[in-house]
Amino acid sequence: MLKGAQSWEFKKRPVIRGTATIVGPDEGSGPLGNEFDIVHADTTIGQDSWEKAEKKMLEEAAKLAIENACLTKEHIQFYVGGDLLNQIISNSFAVRTMQIPYLGIFGACSTSMEGLAVASLIVDSGFGHHVMAGTCSHNSTAEKQFRYPTEYGSQKPPTAQYTVTGAACAVLGNHGSGPVVTGATIGRVIDMGIKDPFNMGAAMAPAAVDTLQAHFRDFQREPGYYDLIVTGDLAKVGYEIACELLEKHKVPIHQTSYKDCGLMVFDREKQDVQAGGSGCACSAVVTYGHILKRLKKGELKRVLVVATGALLSPLSFQQGESIPCIAHAVAIESEVR
Amino acid sequence: MLKGAQSWEFKKRPVIRGTATIVGPDEGSGPLGNEFDIVHADTTIGQDSWEKAEKKMLEEAAKLAIENACLTKEHIQFYVGGDLLNQIISNSFAVRTMQIPYLGIFGACSTSMEGLAVASLIVDSGFGHHVMAGTCSHNSTAEKQFRYPTEYGSQKPPTAQYTVTGAACAVLGNHGSGPVVTGATIGRVIDMGIKDPFNMGAAMAPAAVDTLQAHFRDFQREPGYYDLIVTGDLAKVGYEIACELLEKHKVPIHQTSYKDCGLMVFDREKQDVQAGGSGCACSAVVTYGHILKRLKKGELKRVLVVATGALLSPLSFQQGESIPCIAHAVAIESEVR
Repeated sequence: MLKGAQSWEFKKRPVIRGTATIVGPDEGSGPLGNEFDIVHADTTIGQDSWEKAEKKMLEEAAKLAIENACLTKEHIQFYVGGDLLNQIISNSFAVRTMQIPYLGIFGACSTSMEGLAVASLIVDSGFGHHVMAGTCSHNSTAEKQFRYPTEYGSQKPPTAQYTVTGAACAVLGNHGSGPVVTGATIGRVIDMGIKDPFNMGAAMAPAAVDTLQAHFRDFQREPGYYDLIVTGDLAKVGYEIACELLEKHKVPIHQTSYKDCGLMVFDREKQDVQAGGSGCACSAVVTYGHILKRLKKGELKRVLVVATGALLSPLSFQQGESIPCIAHAVAIESEVR
Repeated sequence: MLKGAQSWEFKKRPVIRGTATIVGPDEGSGPLGNEFDIVHADTTIGQDSWEKAEKKMLEEAAKLAIENACLTKEHIQFYVGGDLLNQIISNSFAVRTMQIPYLGIFGACSTSMEGLAVASLIVDSGFGHHVMAGTCSHNSTAEKQFRYPTEYGSQKPPTAQYTVTGAACAVLGNHGSGPVVTGATIGRVIDMGIKDPFNMGAAMAPAAVDTLQAHFRDFQREPGYYDLIVTGDLAKVGYEIACELLEKHKVPIHQTSYKDCGLMVFDREKQDVQAGGSGCACSAVVTYGHILKRLKKGELKRVLVVATGALLSPLSFQQGESIPCIAHAVAIESEVR
């Protein structure tokens, strides 16, 4: 049901029955490398284009998530997913293989939690028994589409972020065992006038804070309700700005552990990833690979994932527009009430 | 609630409280020209780029739809929308102006009914009291993104379609008066191997038929349940293929009036539009401008709108991929039970 102004409370607590995470070599050699289901040794994954490799990872994630949920694809009524590529081709082509009724979404790097929120809504409201959410990104497809031809090897400023190569899916069900989704907050578009596509973290941080404030207001909660709050991919620059903004707005974030998936997925000391990770897969592989494992083990009880997206296109940038940003939050709790 | 394998039945019958349709000059001089709220005399709408004109139309449609619903934007909890442009910038930038919590979607030209279905789901399940769905397209932005630089004036084969310049929004509510949304069928991706982006109608027709068959199966209905069934933008080539496929699959489509929005929005005898209209706005402006007026007048009681989308990108075409297609169906009925 609607909770407050812009949030959803899932009273039937849809269960995350199974997930799968697929990553590339850089993510595999990062701090969370052991937590992913499949680590590919090269970024082409045996395909003849990076786009096909991105699609292939999503197909693998979907297949494995369904297996991990002890289901077959015939059990899944709907798939909700999107990605960064123009016309979200990675998802549309992967769904052609899956043959599951499909709701395509786009929220840039917030897509992971937009999809999980919509899938949870469908299950909670009885409009689907089993629904899968998924997303993917690929460093080389994102570079060539949003920045420069990958082969240039062009230099980047330290505020730039490194797109995660990976795919992740989660199968939600109206029964079964696993962590449960208890709520979601749908974000508004926030644009503070930043125009530099090499500083997305700074552009996205205010959107993350806006959604966090809305979430606490709508659910009448404080940050301490959660053991862990993670933002999607603010990375170093955006994370520090988010911390400052939360303090400025007197949000007692110190009550909990606050981290950022863009800082968790890579080791910035050892890996050349500028400010940290980004991409649709960033929050998805960290959440479904790492955080869900900690929830299942009982190390965490309640987690809030705030995925952040920068809704620009190369064309909007060329036309002098600033970067509209959005963040969607999803609350995941361990199954024991 | 879930109905059959891939459909939703909206038992609380969300009300379409208000709509608005904005179009360009070609649509204004077409057969339905008098039915749109605003007809712009030129396609730039006073903006310095076509993309900004497309965004501007959507902002106008959103504002007017809310006014026509006798509401203010503070009443609208969520906006669900998307468009054809890379990273759906028309919607994301328009929502920056609207400041309504936002779920971005992408279904190519099926976006209109994907959005209406998701918005209806949110209202029907009590996750929002008032939810707006919207979409837009612009002939010149689509041409330059998907085909050739617009200034070339390149020739086209007769199977090509003419993207509708327009925007349309619908405000749904859990009470009030107006036509009601009673059901939806979410499509699967269908790809019959067609690779010619100048023949989208032929590519999309099998997806429309697949969704129609699923709809009749899930609701245990025959076509005669509806006074009118419209597909989104198959245009002449696709419409004829859909008719053949329906006959081949023994769907008694002759029980009802079956039309295509791509053939309704333009007069192919008098307007140079090749096989007919297309674009996200095609089914949206015909449905919200023309069909809803006929439902309100009592000329129609039950209508099924099957919006069709071709989920390709220029890049997937260049890489030799065929065109995955999808269709989403929404049933709209006059408010009297």
